[in-house]
Amino acid sequence: MCRWLAYSGSPIFLSRLLFEPEHSLIVQSLRARQSVFPTNGDGFGVGWYGSRSEPGLFRDVLPAWNDDNLQSIAEQIESHLFLAHVRASTGTATARANCHPFRWGEWLFMHNGAIGGYEQIRRELDLLIDPDFYLNRRGTTDSEAMFYLALTHGLETDVPGALARTVSDIERLMKEKGVTAPLRVSVVVSDSRRLWAVRYASDDAPPTMYIGRASAALYYAGLEGGGNDVLVMSEPLDDVDDNWQLVESASVVTVIDGDVTSSAFVPVSH
Amino acid sequence: MCRWLAYSGSPIFLSRLLFEPEHSLIVQSLRARQSVFPTNGDGFGVGWYGSRSEPGLFRDVLPAWNDDNLQSIAEQIESHLFLAHVRASTGTATARANCHPFRWGEWLFMHNGAIGGYEQIRRELDLLIDPDFYLNRRGTTDSEAMFYLALTHGLETDVPGALARTVSDIERLMKEKGVTAPLRVSVVVSDSRRLWAVRYASDDAPPTMYIGRASAALYYAGLEGGGNDVLVMSEPLDDVDDNWQLVESASVVTVIDGDVTSSAFVPVSH
Amino acid sequence: MCRWLAYSGSPIFLSRLLFEPEHSLIVQSLRARQSVFPTNGDGFGVGWYGSRSEPGLFRDVLPAWNDDNLQSIAEQIESHLFLAHVRASTGTATARANCHPFRWGEWLFMHNGAIGGYEQIRRELDLLIDPDFYLNRRGTTDSEAMFYLALTHGLETDVPGALARTVSDIERLMKEKGVTAPLRVSVVVSDSRRLWAVRYASDDAPPTMYIGRASAALYYAGLEGGGNDVLVMSEPLDDVDDNWQLVESASVVTVIDGDVTSSAFVPVSH
Amino acid sequence: MCRWLAYSGSPIFLSRLLFEPEHSLIVQSLRARQSVFPTNGDGFGVGWYGSRSEPGLFRDVLPAWNDDNLQSIAEQIESHLFLAHVRASTGTATARANCHPFRWGEWLFMHNGAIGGYEQIRRELDLLIDPDFYLNRRGTTDSEAMFYLALTHGLETDVPGALARTVSDIERLMKEKGVTAPLRVSVVVSDSRRLWAVRYASDDAPPTMYIGRASAALYYAGLEGGGNDVLVMSEPLDDVDDNWQLVESASVVTVIDGDVTSSAFVPVSH
Repeated sequence: MCRWLAYSGSPIFLSRLLFEPEHSLIVQSLRARQSVFPTNGDGFGVGWYGSRSEPGLFRDVLPAWNDDNLQSIAEQIESHLFLAHVRASTGTATARANCHPFRWGEWLFMHNGAIGGYEQIRRELDLLIDPDFYLNRRGTTDSEAMFYLALTHGLETDVPGALARTVSDIERLMKEKGVTAPLRVSVVVSDSRRLWAVRYASDDAPPTMYIGRASAALYYAGLEGGGNDVLVMSEPLDDVDDNWQLVESASVVTVIDGDVTSSAFVPVSH
Repeated sequence: MCRWLAYSGSPIFLSRLLFEPEHSLIVQSLRARQSVFPTNGDGFGVGWYGSRSEPGLFRDVLPAWNDDNLQSIAEQIESHLFLAHVRASTGTATARANCHPFRWGEWLFMHNGAIGGYEQIRRELDLLIDPDFYLNRRGTTDSEAMFYLALTHGLETDVPGALARTVSDIERLMKEKGVTAPLRVSVVVSDSRRLWAVRYASDDAPPTMYIGRASAALYYAGLEGGGNDVLVMSEPLDDVDDNWQLVESASVVTVIDGDVTSSAFVPVSH
Repeated sequence: MCRWLAYSGSPIFLSRLLFEPEHSLIVQSLRARQSVFPTNGDGFGVGWYGSRSEPGLFRDVLPAWNDDNLQSIAEQIESHLFLAHVRASTGTATARANCHPFRWGEWLFMHNGAIGGYEQIRRELDLLIDPDFYLNRRGTTDSEAMFYLALTHGLETDVPGALARTVSDIERLMKEKGVTAPLRVSVVVSDSRRLWAVRYASDDAPPTMYIGRASAALYYAGLEGGGNDVLVMSEPLDDVDDNWQLVESASVVTVIDGDVTSSAFVPVSH
Repeated sequence: MCRWLAYSGSPIFLSRLLFEPEHSLIVQSLRARQSVFPTNGDGFGVGWYGSRSEPGLFRDVLPAWNDDNLQSIAEQIESHLFLAHVRASTGTATARANCHPFRWGEWLFMHNGAIGGYEQIRRELDLLIDPDFYLNRRGTTDSEAMFYLALTHGLETDVPGALARTVSDIERLMKEKGVTAPLRVSVVVSDSRRLWAVRYASDDAPPTMYIGRASAALYYAGLEGGGNDVLVMSEPLDDVDDNWQLVESASVVTVIDGDVTSSAFVPVSH
């Protein structure tokens, strides 16, 4: 289980959200509150959109709470849409290639959760990935496999549909192998302008996911920033209940230019 | 604040104490119980005596709980005397040179604690180190400075005396700079045959330190190992009170061939 | 292209061969002489057999020429059979999981060479690996895939046969995809007592491979060590022609208790 | 000995100079041509000025030729003035804190060269550093000591003068210790708007240093970029002699808004 945040809005320095608030993502890397894994020290990553169409990507294996490079980069880079992730491994190795976000062309993807019985279905999952995408599989995590499977299922033209087919595939493989452990998914995808977040579980305990306004949270923290912005996070930046809304289970949230819409997320067999 | 253990006794595989018990040192790296810093993820180190007079040293910057190299090395290496340390930085960088133990010829040294106002006295502390030892200063921690200052004060011929003079120097420098934060020290030193441990603080809250028999703790854990052995640790390996004795504050414990003696530790101005 | 050595004989400290000779493997990591890639700085690894049946494994991503941990471990560990490898990536990432040797139970495997058009056949190659072995695929190199494919083909009971079937599979996949770049292989496998080395290429330029006596090379270097020993290396430790014999192309060398036998290596379709 | 470049001019992406030209700095990290140390694989660093007064800093210990993070960051960040460095250690450890550039507030500093007999004068050199600057000494290199000594000597108000006093101090300490090995210096300093480069040696073999126009070199390479720009480098980006001018020994070059002036550099005792 991991912690992450995704921001969309007026350009701000990454450090404003990653480092400055009292319960910032970097603080969550050391002491998460809404996870059974309070320590998220198995690497981190940030992906951000700047002046190129392809996003920047910086991932490393040290704990985020103590990485000077991350701090300096976050202080220098401004972005209108970025994803950040601190990792608590559920079994796979600590390696840059296993850190989130993952990138394909203009696309970024990150995940918190776990595929029950992943070791049992890993090979079959890999086989479902289109060869062109498989070439870019660099690590061994379930999350990266989900990304390339979603691309195989048309993520670039239909994000909710591709994720629904991906989740359906995974549930089918789990069933075939007799896996009883649950599938728990908390995914974010972006193409630089739009952002999608899916909260889903095969049981009744999906990872937490909150949505709020970064500008409100920053204002509360005595900081400026944001504007027409949306912040999606594993857990809130602060204790002000009014600032955060829990995303419903089995739903997909779409953020475009500050507008948020939500709809049901239902796995689709195909 | 950090967590450490020091073992002296019949040769055992390092993994027996580092990985196998339920509350092993590696578990303590993720969830220490007797420290205000439960996470000790800023690097680790092991120093061990084998068939050469100079000890082996393996230190790295990843969290100990997730380092395959540490696990494999601990499973392969047997030693009659070894020191192991998991680090929670009190301000200095995560770097191999800042990981414990430190080595000088046949000597190993590790520390848990902090020098109050270290930044204010760092330069003066460095100046007290003999030039021959200073050449080997590789990092920037207060702990490494203490080691080279203790060597300057004759550690190689009188461990308790050298540490007493070192602590006195530090307290004097702190006083000169008007530092009010306390000095807290929990040190282990070895020369391959003997082991010394000092527990001391300038206030009434020295870091915890326990002494026990590894063989008793391993027996309780359903494991074999040890023999004529002594284990000194920041916190116990298990919950069996009878297995562990709290080392008194302001004392130095000496372990030679399984015999443990204890005496008062009093800083000595000189 | 990489550089490696494999030693079998009386127990010696790893450092004796890795660090002490003038043209040691660590020196070759910085300045190889018989390779078009003189710099082998993309990680390293050592695998050694000690008192357990499973070998030890230490791999890291820094250049071998400047890694204090490698030096200390090599100075402390004695082994009767060990493999060491310095890596020059042919395209895949610098990551511990991509460093050699690879380990499966009691087995170690390392490789120097390249599969032509690996990116084009990578997925098909992965599909040939038995699911039980596939679970242990940790990285993305062609070398690791070869190891798990050889295990799939019965490496544990017939090393030369399994490698012959593996090479045949690879050549067939290359042909199917129209790959014209050559397959070049220089492989070492061990189970702690025996050691096999295969030199082969689909064109007339297999990687270099030499066989000699470590004791002779060490004697020339003014060092002691070895005894009833055999050393197989990518390139010699010294310039004494009499100390080294080039392994013939398309051959497999078997070393058991100091005895060396050689036979033809012919890929076997199946 | 290391390789570096410093750019001042119209904002360009860092990758334009670090990665794209045929003999780019990253290529020089693997195969430098004008150095007795062709391999510069002991870490790297970039420092750049963006929209804040304090520069960004990204340094890591892997070889620059194989670091995905460096490539992505260089592709995303545009800067009007940046410094980049690939390191070949002359004895001190591979560690982030030993990588260049070094930063103090708005200032960046990097170096190629060596202080003869550094180990003999290291402690005395450290003692000359003002306590306020000494607090920020994070590593153990001679280069970092030079930077903090230059700050002690007033770098912030008089760069050439502070460097002249620093070099004089070092030569005096070397003389006092009877060091006969030479001092060789190739330094760059910047405050975001201005850039100073000093080439100097106590013998007749200072490190190479060239000055040219990035726009001319990029044009030759079929690339666009630069404008009113100056590029200072350890060795040229290409083989077009007209693009590069060797900086005279014992001189200091000053670059302000595209204007280059040069004057003699003479150590000043004080």
